[in-house]
Amino acid sequence: MNILDPAAGEHAYELDRSHVFHSWSAQGALKPFVIAGALASTVWDFDGNHYLDFSSQLVNMNIGHQHPRVVAAIKAQADTLTMVAPAHANLARGEAAKRILAKAGRPFSKVFFTNGGADANENAIRMARLVTGRDKVLSQYRSYHGNTGAAIVATGDWRRMPNEFARGHVHFFGPFAYRSEFWSDSPEQECERALHHLERMIVSEGQSTIAAILLEGVPGTAGVLVPPPGYLEGVRALADKYGILLILDEVMSGFGRTGEWFSWQGFSREEGNWKPDLVTFAKGVNSGYVPTGGVIISESIANAFDDVVFPGGLTYSGHPLAMASIVASIDAMDDEGIIDHARVIGSDHLEPGLAELARKHPMIGEVRGLGVFWALDLVDDPDTRNPVSGAVIARLKGELMSRGLLPFAADNRIHVVPPCIVTADEVARALEIYDEAFTAVE
Amino acid sequence: MNILDPAAGEHAYELDRSHVFHSWSAQGALKPFVIAGALASTVWDFDGNHYLDFSSQLVNMNIGHQHPRVVAAIKAQADTLTMVAPAHANLARGEAAKRILAKAGRPFSKVFFTNGGADANENAIRMARLVTGRDKVLSQYRSYHGNTGAAIVATGDWRRMPNEFARGHVHFFGPFAYRSEFWSDSPEQECERALHHLERMIVSEGQSTIAAILLEGVPGTAGVLVPPPGYLEGVRALADKYGILLILDEVMSGFGRTGEWFSWQGFSREEGNWKPDLVTFAKGVNSGYVPTGGVIISESIANAFDDVVFPGGLTYSGHPLAMASIVASIDAMDDEGIIDHARVIGSDHLEPGLAELARKHPMIGEVRGLGVFWALDLVDDPDTRNPVSGAVIARLKGELMSRGLLPFAADNRIHVVPPCIVTADEVARALEIYDEAFTAVE
Repeated sequence: MNILDPAAGEHAYELDRSHVFHSWSAQGALKPFVIAGALASTVWDFDGNHYLDFSSQLVNMNIGHQHPRVVAAIKAQADTLTMVAPAHANLARGEAAKRILAKAGRPFSKVFFTNGGADANENAIRMARLVTGRDKVLSQYRSYHGNTGAAIVATGDWRRMPNEFARGHVHFFGPFAYRSEFWSDSPEQECERALHHLERMIVSEGQSTIAAILLEGVPGTAGVLVPPPGYLEGVRALADKYGILLILDEVMSGFGRTGEWFSWQGFSREEGNWKPDLVTFAKGVNSGYVPTGGVIISESIANAFDDVVFPGGLTYSGHPLAMASIVASIDAMDDEGIIDHARVIGSDHLEPGLAELARKHPMIGEVRGLGVFWALDLVDDPDTRNPVSGAVIARLKGELMSRGLLPFAADNRIHVVPPCIVTADEVARALEIYDEAFTAVE
Repeated sequence: MNILDPAAGEHAYELDRSHVFHSWSAQGALKPFVIAGALASTVWDFDGNHYLDFSSQLVNMNIGHQHPRVVAAIKAQADTLTMVAPAHANLARGEAAKRILAKAGRPFSKVFFTNGGADANENAIRMARLVTGRDKVLSQYRSYHGNTGAAIVATGDWRRMPNEFARGHVHFFGPFAYRSEFWSDSPEQECERALHHLERMIVSEGQSTIAAILLEGVPGTAGVLVPPPGYLEGVRALADKYGILLILDEVMSGFGRTGEWFSWQGFSREEGNWKPDLVTFAKGVNSGYVPTGGVIISESIANAFDDVVFPGGLTYSGHPLAMASIVASIDAMDDEGIIDHARVIGSDHLEPGLAELARKHPMIGEVRGLGVFWALDLVDDPDTRNPVSGAVIARLKGELMSRGLLPFAADNRIHVVPPCIVTADEVARALEIYDEAFTAVE
């Protein structure tokens, strides 16, 4: 698969440290992990060490690394036509849009393609502002929506604070029973109070000033905060009551991560079949094999731009290479039953396995998730729920890496986010590694 | 190369019109051109009609369509490793950064990769704001800097106006002798007055509030506005005088478009060897074969983030597939002398050929450009310089297409922007087609 040469690894490391500026980091002390190759749920370095990829890189490798059908589709498209301007049409783009719309169902009618999740949210916000003629966008403190001007200010977490150069973004608290902002003592009460809080925010900001409510289906980097039953249905009802559009950010939660094509489909099935107005996507749509993203647009919003110019665009919108990888990825997910597999891996393996892990290790304050989208909320003390320090997380990461598992850490949490195609055996091995690593750190 | 089947073309067209939402357009009346395949400077449709691509798609196809070395590199990287998270290192990314820095020269020391030009400008603006502790960004009215929150507000043209949801962006007029804002009567006077205007803007806004001046090396979509000799050197001197950073947007003007690796290198050679502080790129760096872009960072700015976290990032930063295409594209441009070729095509073929065209057709008010980067400024009357109407441009586009040339039109202009690898014979053929089309429209 790959020539394994430690000298090549050192060379790659030196080139990186000499020339590459990294995101979200102080540059001085970085020691990036050099990846030589990957297949399915495994990555390896130039020394021949193999790792179970329970990060899915940035929670994007839903179909696993180097899926042969997606690689073949990229190569075939590269031979045919790599790039056309967005104003022109090409077959791969239409085929990709058709497949995405088939998964989203009615009332969605068009797809606008972008380069990633951030500009997907930028364009969804633009559509909402233009269609409603209103300015404000409400989003949650515990959220991440991307890193461009509007998307970073829509983001709720600290990454917003050095970057607040877009206007009209107002933040509210979403439901999070384990660390409630609403003094609730049950998921039902948390849901009810979170909806009350949101309605108070809408009324206090002024309904006629609010274009959209922007939410992640399941807030991801913020801690895999699965909404309690009824919350999203309640947000939809508030949006309708006040004439506000609902944008659902499915960048991380879409295309299999929750064991559904879109996370809202799972919630909606049990909650009266509500739909968002705009859905943003990236990551899982093609597992990041080629940079891409987009907005799924409901018919009424799409039609609003039939005779009015939509003032947004970008050079690589609907890039043929990216589109070909979307087509192959969705077809492979369909043919191989990957979405159902992710759901079963969640319900039958990760959920019981992680619950067992939590019983053994009091450091694990809460296990949350569904599908292949889980978080371990780590605490100093199960009663105070005080988050563990960064030093504990760093030690855990080291223990996991040394045992052959590539982890995903965020704040005081380990996110358990393997590819959707992870096998039951791999989950069993990963659970053993987590177990040993927690024991080593305790 | 491609199976030419008119039914496939109709199918692609129908899929597009049914499912794809297009940029910068009212969706109702769109009739996108369906591209089936392409090679070098030529594209073709499913009916077997061939067109000289004098648009380079969106002025990005610098190395031409389907360059075999770049296609091969994409396929080889697809076989090895398509994607890793930006926090990890991979060989292709280091190799790409090394090559870009070698072309930019000192004092540049690091590259931060993005998905395209817009988020390159976003991140350059972020760096400038964080390093200076100042907020405002000055940019030109005649400019385009991308379509995300900060980038679209930095943009000067109409595309900004429905999208002004980032703060701190102030616009000024750049030099444009043919349509002077400064009542000048020579390029020298235009330059002097444009610099005076910029200094008055800096002083009037308050130097201590301004983080950066953001300029395209050659404003592109605004009309290929080649700056008069001394202008950019003068801007650099003003930036130094007032402690403001200079960001040069080389998204369209970089990687061969002007017959240089970066447009500022051509100007700087004759103007005392000045350098920008930050350079943004996309398009020509890999001719758009895979979506990518980035910021070239001077050493002092990069070092400012050695111990301080840089609060920016994106999932596809330094994407291996994109990086492999950059490496192959720069190597091929080097080995095949593509940059020098673009310069000679400009000086020996396009410049005299377009001048001759202008002598024959009074509708061509001015010819501007260098390298493979030219604009024909079309007017109703050479004396009033009144721009031609959109109807004239639409008729011209039709006449050019029907003769086998894919044009690039913007406002009242035809931009003559073929790939850098365009041959002298292709330029001669294109000049004949332009000539016939102007005759047909007159």
